[in-house]
Amino acid sequence: MKTNLKALFIVSAVFLNFLLHAQNNDSLIVRKIFETALVSDTGYENLYYLTKKIGPRLAGTPQSLAAVDWAFHEMKNLGNDTVYLQETQVIRWIRGDVETFNITSAKFGELKTKMCALGGSVGTPKGGISSEIVEVQNFDELKTLGEKNIKGKIVFFNRAMDPKEIFTFYAYGKAADQRVNGASEAAKYGAVGVIIRSLSIGNNDFPHTGIMRYEDNIAKIPCAAISTNDAEILSKWLKQDTSLKVFFEMYCKYDGEAKSYNVIGEIKGSEKPNEIITVGGHLDSWDITPGANDDGAGCIHSMDVSRIFRDLKIRPKHTVRIVLFMDEEFAQRGGATYAESVKNKNEKILIAIESDEGGSMPIGFSVDANDTIVKAVQQWEPILKPYGLYELKKGWGGVDIGPLKKFGIPLIGLTINSQRYFDYHHAPNDTFETVSKRELQMGCGSVAAIIYLLDKYEFEIK
Amino acid sequence: MKTNLKALFIVSAVFLNFLLHAQNNDSLIVRKIFETALVSDTGYENLYYLTKKIGPRLAGTPQSLAAVDWAFHEMKNLGNDTVYLQETQVIRWIRGDVETFNITSAKFGELKTKMCALGGSVGTPKGGISSEIVEVQNFDELKTLGEKNIKGKIVFFNRAMDPKEIFTFYAYGKAADQRVNGASEAAKYGAVGVIIRSLSIGNNDFPHTGIMRYEDNIAKIPCAAISTNDAEILSKWLKQDTSLKVFFEMYCKYDGEAKSYNVIGEIKGSEKPNEIITVGGHLDSWDITPGANDDGAGCIHSMDVSRIFRDLKIRPKHTVRIVLFMDEEFAQRGGATYAESVKNKNEKILIAIESDEGGSMPIGFSVDANDTIVKAVQQWEPILKPYGLYELKKGWGGVDIGPLKKFGIPLIGLTINSQRYFDYHHAPNDTFETVSKRELQMGCGSVAAIIYLLDKYEFEIK
Repeated sequence: MKTNLKALFIVSAVFLNFLLHAQNNDSLIVRKIFETALVSDTGYENLYYLTKKIGPRLAGTPQSLAAVDWAFHEMKNLGNDTVYLQETQVIRWIRGDVETFNITSAKFGELKTKMCALGGSVGTPKGGISSEIVEVQNFDELKTLGEKNIKGKIVFFNRAMDPKEIFTFYAYGKAADQRVNGASEAAKYGAVGVIIRSLSIGNNDFPHTGIMRYEDNIAKIPCAAISTNDAEILSKWLKQDTSLKVFFEMYCKYDGEAKSYNVIGEIKGSEKPNEIITVGGHLDSWDITPGANDDGAGCIHSMDVSRIFRDLKIRPKHTVRIVLFMDEEFAQRGGATYAESVKNKNEKILIAIESDEGGSMPIGFSVDANDTIVKAVQQWEPILKPYGLYELKKGWGGVDIGPLKKFGIPLIGLTINSQRYFDYHHAPNDTFETVSKRELQMGCGSVAAIIYLLDKYEFEIK
Repeated sequence: MKTNLKALFIVSAVFLNFLLHAQNNDSLIVRKIFETALVSDTGYENLYYLTKKIGPRLAGTPQSLAAVDWAFHEMKNLGNDTVYLQETQVIRWIRGDVETFNITSAKFGELKTKMCALGGSVGTPKGGISSEIVEVQNFDELKTLGEKNIKGKIVFFNRAMDPKEIFTFYAYGKAADQRVNGASEAAKYGAVGVIIRSLSIGNNDFPHTGIMRYEDNIAKIPCAAISTNDAEILSKWLKQDTSLKVFFEMYCKYDGEAKSYNVIGEIKGSEKPNEIITVGGHLDSWDITPGANDDGAGCIHSMDVSRIFRDLKIRPKHTVRIVLFMDEEFAQRGGATYAESVKNKNEKILIAIESDEGGSMPIGFSVDANDTIVKAVQQWEPILKPYGLYELKKGWGGVDIGPLKKFGIPLIGLTINSQRYFDYHHAPNDTFETVSKRELQMGCGSVAAIIYLLDKYEFEIK
């Protein structure tokens, strides 16, 4: 026994030493990756260009094609071996010039709100709608009020995002049904239009847009958002003047389809070039915002990987494919097209990573895969935590990589401190200035670091 | 053995159950604390008042007394049992109206920089100084150049904060010698003035002030900061035109002493009222900045503890004493006075907590105490991590609570995501707008949560 124990001890010691050495070496390289992210202005300057020079870039608009063109050329400068466009067909939806929602109260006077149509909404009839308005917090209240109280009126959904949620995406998830389904739900009881309280935590003066969807065989009624501040005023006035009138006018509409593109760059793998690590963000934004956080930052995080690898002379074993997806906001056509292409070409995607939670400080990774893969990522905590990446857990991957899940491909989302995100989500104030250069750089480092580790170890558990 | 094992198992199970129950109960209360922080606008509104209505508040100025007066009355509204002022004597230092640093190059033309005197600097001689300027990166270069190259000239310290440091306070620590000691070091070789590159990571147009100190028996020469952008230009010009001239003029000066105050509020302990948990931030700011992050946010974090405890009907066992310190920036007189008072009254301070790292997202606590106490805090990781408080480690407490260390009092500093801090540290852009309401609220919750746990368990290890 004694000898065996000794042998075991020696073997263990050697193995432990090997592990520590590997960990130390990885820690050193990850350190270099973050340093390379932190000393370069390239990503920040690219975000400036995308948000300030190109600006809002809803899929199907000329600006979105300008973004495609810019990204295609810029990615060629950033160390990719190949850069190409992947065609996708997108739906065009156009906001009209007129967007009016005025409130008139005999008691309080008149309020001209800041309003914006929700993405996908139909317009109002010509000349707009003058009507009464009924406030509800949820679909149950709508049901309770019923057709007799709702027919011919506008419904005002005013349920606030819950400030008690620590992770603000949960609060968003709990409130988003009003925006996505509110129009059809209200139309079932004869409503002629819907106004929602913007999905923003806290009070501000910006209306926040976002996608809405109509149910089949239900009348399509126009649907728009007002700012949380205006929603507060409207609610207060309504409590004391139920006969107040509103005037609602807008002429947004669908306008056919258009050709657009995902922009793709690849670093060819040295050992397994046919096994691919996909990483991306979405290039499109809503039409009323420069989209610095949604998702300019995610594009920059992804684009910077090839620069960092080039500058550090890291040649991955697997092919790293950077995908800037088109049309996340409206119909997710870019993500769908990418998944179809993966299927048609029978490509092996090792893993797909997405950054679409903004440009604030990254705090970890959320792994949408089986427990073995979750554990494989969690074992890197000692390497990642010094950079604030402390939350390594099972969770959500992302919208654009989502369609890959049905092929059994593991997904990873970059998790970002969410406290500020809904201050500017889908609103005109999602500007370049809200993104800190260093926090953006930390995001670039985070994405490059997880790719480095995944490329080296795949899902091997040490 | 069997029975004993069974008994042990039962005892263990009961004990484990007890621990889990305690942990669960604490988790619930900490959750309530954060929710109470997140639903209240009080702290954010107080930060607005302090930074927008009072504004810059250097110790010894009328504005600093306005801040004292405001805080005294506001703390009475916030659930404290007692609020009082603690007198302290502060040094007055006045920035003059004239602050000029112009660069004239035959080759490049003229640059009028944005400049600010460093705190404590003497002014220039009347009429200013016209001279040549010599760039150095550090004190070694100064020594190498020696008197023959420096005498009669202005020295320009241009060593940048190291962007590779993840925790930006380290980068600050590595660069601050130029600001604090640069004048005396340069004066040893006959320099007539010193200009430093502002201590800011990344390039911006704001000059950042901060304290400097003169060595005894060394000529006192004037010392000022220019923005990092202007420092880049000056350095570039100097490389191609060593004969360029600068003109340096400012009339800052000392102006005696003045009476000022720490503002103190207390929640009386129910069981051990004579054992005190001190928590605080500093009320003063530099004279050129509204000091939202430095340290308006720390004052709000501290002030909100009594509101949160009141709203949740938490009556601590120990007395919780909230101290808004005066004069952290200049001579730390408030912190010194508080420590003297603790000593003179022979008070028992269980622990002292400080928040002075800004209003961004809190990430943990840094414990300046023995390992047992560090471990006591670390055992709360499961309770604190859901709020992003993942970094619980041995480290630095804070400047104002620092003088308590010599009495053996354990210190804790609230650690904040430091990525944005040096964008606005000691500069005019440290405004209310740079603080996110939710991140501020998360700071309030963090401070209240650690006090709740310390009050309940002291340093007991479960």
